[in-house]
Amino acid sequence: MKTRQLWAGAALAAVIALPSLGLAQEAEAPVAVPTHSVFILNSLLFLIGGFLVMWMAAGFAMLEAGLVRTKNVAMQCTKNIALFAVAAIMYYLIGYNLMYPLGNWSVGTDETGGYLGAFALAALEAVGVAPEAADDLGYASTGSDFFFQLMFCATTASIVSGTLAERIKLWPFMIFTVILTGLIYPIQASWKWGGGFLDSQYGFLDFAGSTVVHSVGGWAALAGAIILGARIGKYKDGKTVPIPGSSMPLATLGTFILWLGWFGFNGASQLAMGSVGDVADVSRIFANTNTAAAGGAIAAMILTQILYGKVDLTMVLNGALAGLVSITAEPLTPSLGEATLIGAVGGVIVVFTVPLLDALKIDDVVGAIPVHLFCGIWGTIAVVFTNSDATIGGQLISIAVVGVFVFVVSAVLWVLLAAIMGIRVSEEDEIAGLDAAEIGLEAYPEFGKGSQFL
Amino acid sequence: MKTRQLWAGAALAAVIALPSLGLAQEAEAPVAVPTHSVFILNSLLFLIGGFLVMWMAAGFAMLEAGLVRTKNVAMQCTKNIALFAVAAIMYYLIGYNLMYPLGNWSVGTDETGGYLGAFALAALEAVGVAPEAADDLGYASTGSDFFFQLMFCATTASIVSGTLAERIKLWPFMIFTVILTGLIYPIQASWKWGGGFLDSQYGFLDFAGSTVVHSVGGWAALAGAIILGARIGKYKDGKTVPIPGSSMPLATLGTFILWLGWFGFNGASQLAMGSVGDVADVSRIFANTNTAAAGGAIAAMILTQILYGKVDLTMVLNGALAGLVSITAEPLTPSLGEATLIGAVGGVIVVFTVPLLDALKIDDVVGAIPVHLFCGIWGTIAVVFTNSDATIGGQLISIAVVGVFVFVVSAVLWVLLAAIMGIRVSEEDEIAGLDAAEIGLEAYPEFGKGSQFL
Amino acid sequence: MKTRQLWAGAALAAVIALPSLGLAQEAEAPVAVPTHSVFILNSLLFLIGGFLVMWMAAGFAMLEAGLVRTKNVAMQCTKNIALFAVAAIMYYLIGYNLMYPLGNWSVGTDETGGYLGAFALAALEAVGVAPEAADDLGYASTGSDFFFQLMFCATTASIVSGTLAERIKLWPFMIFTVILTGLIYPIQASWKWGGGFLDSQYGFLDFAGSTVVHSVGGWAALAGAIILGARIGKYKDGKTVPIPGSSMPLATLGTFILWLGWFGFNGASQLAMGSVGDVADVSRIFANTNTAAAGGAIAAMILTQILYGKVDLTMVLNGALAGLVSITAEPLTPSLGEATLIGAVGGVIVVFTVPLLDALKIDDVVGAIPVHLFCGIWGTIAVVFTNSDATIGGQLISIAVVGVFVFVVSAVLWVLLAAIMGIRVSEEDEIAGLDAAEIGLEAYPEFGKGSQFL
Repeated sequence: MKTRQLWAGAALAAVIALPSLGLAQEAEAPVAVPTHSVFILNSLLFLIGGFLVMWMAAGFAMLEAGLVRTKNVAMQCTKNIALFAVAAIMYYLIGYNLMYPLGNWSVGTDETGGYLGAFALAALEAVGVAPEAADDLGYASTGSDFFFQLMFCATTASIVSGTLAERIKLWPFMIFTVILTGLIYPIQASWKWGGGFLDSQYGFLDFAGSTVVHSVGGWAALAGAIILGARIGKYKDGKTVPIPGSSMPLATLGTFILWLGWFGFNGASQLAMGSVGDVADVSRIFANTNTAAAGGAIAAMILTQILYGKVDLTMVLNGALAGLVSITAEPLTPSLGEATLIGAVGGVIVVFTVPLLDALKIDDVVGAIPVHLFCGIWGTIAVVFTNSDATIGGQLISIAVVGVFVFVVSAVLWVLLAAIMGIRVSEEDEIAGLDAAEIGLEAYPEFGKGSQFL
Repeated sequence: MKTRQLWAGAALAAVIALPSLGLAQEAEAPVAVPTHSVFILNSLLFLIGGFLVMWMAAGFAMLEAGLVRTKNVAMQCTKNIALFAVAAIMYYLIGYNLMYPLGNWSVGTDETGGYLGAFALAALEAVGVAPEAADDLGYASTGSDFFFQLMFCATTASIVSGTLAERIKLWPFMIFTVILTGLIYPIQASWKWGGGFLDSQYGFLDFAGSTVVHSVGGWAALAGAIILGARIGKYKDGKTVPIPGSSMPLATLGTFILWLGWFGFNGASQLAMGSVGDVADVSRIFANTNTAAAGGAIAAMILTQILYGKVDLTMVLNGALAGLVSITAEPLTPSLGEATLIGAVGGVIVVFTVPLLDALKIDDVVGAIPVHLFCGIWGTIAVVFTNSDATIGGQLISIAVVGVFVFVVSAVLWVLLAAIMGIRVSEEDEIAGLDAAEIGLEAYPEFGKGSQFL
Repeated sequence: MKTRQLWAGAALAAVIALPSLGLAQEAEAPVAVPTHSVFILNSLLFLIGGFLVMWMAAGFAMLEAGLVRTKNVAMQCTKNIALFAVAAIMYYLIGYNLMYPLGNWSVGTDETGGYLGAFALAALEAVGVAPEAADDLGYASTGSDFFFQLMFCATTASIVSGTLAERIKLWPFMIFTVILTGLIYPIQASWKWGGGFLDSQYGFLDFAGSTVVHSVGGWAALAGAIILGARIGKYKDGKTVPIPGSSMPLATLGTFILWLGWFGFNGASQLAMGSVGDVADVSRIFANTNTAAAGGAIAAMILTQILYGKVDLTMVLNGALAGLVSITAEPLTPSLGEATLIGAVGGVIVVFTVPLLDALKIDDVVGAIPVHLFCGIWGTIAVVFTNSDATIGGQLISIAVVGVFVFVVSAVLWVLLAAIMGIRVSEEDEIAGLDAAEIGLEAYPEFGKGSQFL
């Protein structure tokens, strides 16, 4: 590493001097980024962002595997890899064009506000596409856009998985995931990111999805948790019985993975890095995303020490995630200090709302509803503090519209699934564990099991 | 995130407007990517791809640590980190120039078809190399190419490690790895990727290595598994005794890591992203790779439910990997739908061939032969369905040539090692576990061990 | 993957032909990288490097979680996520401008040599900054620089955490982390990377921080370990009692994560990839970093086999890390062979100094002092072998200056914390485990615990 203050001038000089070092073909170094380079850089941003968000699927898997009991760990792993696979296929079959109709709305238009996107398989640009044949030369390759946007769809499904753990049947969950990733997520996402009515009529601002992704997962999980009911033994004689997760290091690993993946989630949502301003914005977003997570973690840490006399690791982990969800609706405009505060408020929300849900006997195994729904709402509202384009009215209406749509459709779906095939395992299966009942293998066959948590 | 349909035009406008915002030195924005930028972008692709494939070494380590019994976990961790280190050193000492002779064949020529590459240490470009002194200004930096290609060599060795787990001695395995990464892998890889006879005479197509990497690991593992014999107690009274892996979350984590790393594996094998067409191709590859994995996972999930009445998580994990191996020979030309199907067939192959191997009493601890060898062959054949440049004859001949070479050389080597130093631990050591016998520490010293799997 | 030797010419031809495929707006393809592209590419390097180094925080967490006993695992996870969050906030509040005063020294000047940087909050460029308003158009976006440099500060704190595990109280450790990340690290880092007196007066060379990061963490850990004392039962009757870590796969995972993250750590410390020479240098660094780790791992593996008759996995893991630390002071100038040797010497150092520390009854739970301090010193000295700009005098003086500063300030701080609030848990709490005493949950509540290590 060269010394910073010496470097700047030298680099600029080198750049300016470069042509004279070049090939025979001498030319003055251009200043601006060539059109094709912009396309390449934007596509690269999506590919990097996309693989980082894909990695979040592993984060959810580890977080949830660590927060359930050993007897349900293999089920949780199965659900997480399977839901990611389902999302990939459904987004190809129907989701992508439902979400991005690019003017071909089934109901509505770009001008009046779209309500229902287009029905078609996702199609990528041809192999070795010529620049003039690219779908959108000023933007990015369609393959990179598809890849990136798909990952947001998958994230939404991952959120649901944790809340409903330890008592839901595998196949009804998979069917719900099919509908969530193929219809529910893309339709509501089109209202904002596809240029639909929330975008055009209400000026809704949600940069990377505090509402469009996180609260959607949260609403679907809330509907499921209410209809499914609490785990056996969770609420007893008016008291909440703590059911400890089986592996704190896996939960910690999951949180770190999610933290890492979030740089792609928020950063690549800038959708461009082909200009000085865009790459500086992506950089702001990386820094703000990181500090918001830090704010959430520290707030939860201090608060649990004050409230309970000890630091609660699971709260610190959820505090970090809360900070991340909170900054997601607007990771660009806040200063570092504002981002830290927005994240810290998220951490506080989680510490206070986890017990609140328990008081309502809504059994959320991993705390996904506080983290993704409550902080998703908070983050969406917080946009108005740092972005003057946002209106509190537009934000609240949009939160409500998305919330009512997702909650109602999810609830109907859960009720239908419950009626048709049942969504909850039998009492014996729940006590024996879902791994034995539905997966047929044990997550940790050789490790002693503490009977007190069976 | 700005709304998609509004964005495109705005971005293009911004790009075109950029020069007027630039430095004093005004100039019209160029369209095409400058030569030096192409070099930089290609090198960057290799660096990103390389670190993603490096990460696959951790994926194999976790997958294998999760699929062996606790008493052999530390050994499996040791082998995986050590083989990666050995690959790094051997590829530097001999492998890189054996694989890429760039015309300096020891046996053969580029025109007649090379058979044996060059013997020389790998050498990188000088520090701060001037453009005109770069080894290949139209390609990428030699350091990035070396780094990326090395990772494929290491992957091949990782594949072998899992199959032979729980009964092979450490040091013979390490010696085999030295030969595999220094000679076997680079020599056969030169036949295709170095421009050797399979490339020039048979028109063999293998984009990222279904044959060149995955089946090579598989053949070497198969030879070893046959010569080494099955684990004690695996086949009893004509029946296969299931020996459960010790940690499903680690196996799941390993699979997610491999899935992530595969974007680098296949995506960066485009070898270029300095043009609109190339970056769009890399994007196609990312999307196809992902959906093939999804297809494999879902196929295995549904199939095990139908066949066994329960979903088998290890099959779902191997199904995802099977999809990835299957798409690796041609991740570019298929449509998303075709890629999904190619991957799904891979998932089906795994579900049916894991029991087949057991019927033959070939004990493959982690299922690496079905995943990497059988799906490697399938993927190599499947190229003909979507790429008209491939011929079924050329593909089959190449599969056979590589297979015979690797299997025979590996078998001779295993037999020699068995004769000289023994390759299998004693019966007592196998029962006590390799960790106690050869590593001298326990993987999980504090966790109770279920005696039934000892 | 196209064949390598065919590819090069074709790619160059394609690049040169590109303009004729372009938009109507025809133009000859420029050669050199445009100024704005350089800014973008440098910023992108920092963002990629930054997220890779961020990931190292997870690596330390897993390594340490795997190397402590189960009863202290949740504490170790808590400390690792909390210290990362603290570093993020402190570096924003005070560290960044202390480290990079950019001429505004509180004590000293760039010319005479700075001693104490500037006191100010970190501030990023405005949203959508115009090129002419960028802080340093020849360098990179401030946000990307802040993000990247922050991660080095956090790494320093991570190093301390492992050494002091299993007996330190949570809150004194957190307070130490506040001072370390807010003051100690940035002040000494400014002496070199901020252009301070070690840089300007002594010609100190430390590319990515063998001294500035790793030895700093090591000195702070050493001071703490001496003042804190050894764990109960570690040294008994003049003998060292081995206390095995609870999970070898987690320790292995942590090592792989660190290995991966190190590509960002060293590679992005080139601080530029906007020219052919810079990207070729970044590539050299990736390759050298990898091979140094390999050298360290293999050296430790062979040496433990020779010394103890068995391979010690924890030594192999620490050997890889030792190789990484050793190459960090100069990952650019060595050849691949030299880098392998530099790393291998690191592996040897670790194998011999871990028992040495035990002989001195300095209880370093994870071996961080041998890895980060001793190999940090070795790596800093080794610069003189491959970089003729380095002088042995300048290197030794700088090692000593940094060492004395960090050790003395850390020791004073540990003594103060011990006097004011106590830094060590009670004997009962240490025996019961820190998780029960300070975190209030168990890391593995359902797994049997081997009483012999309690």
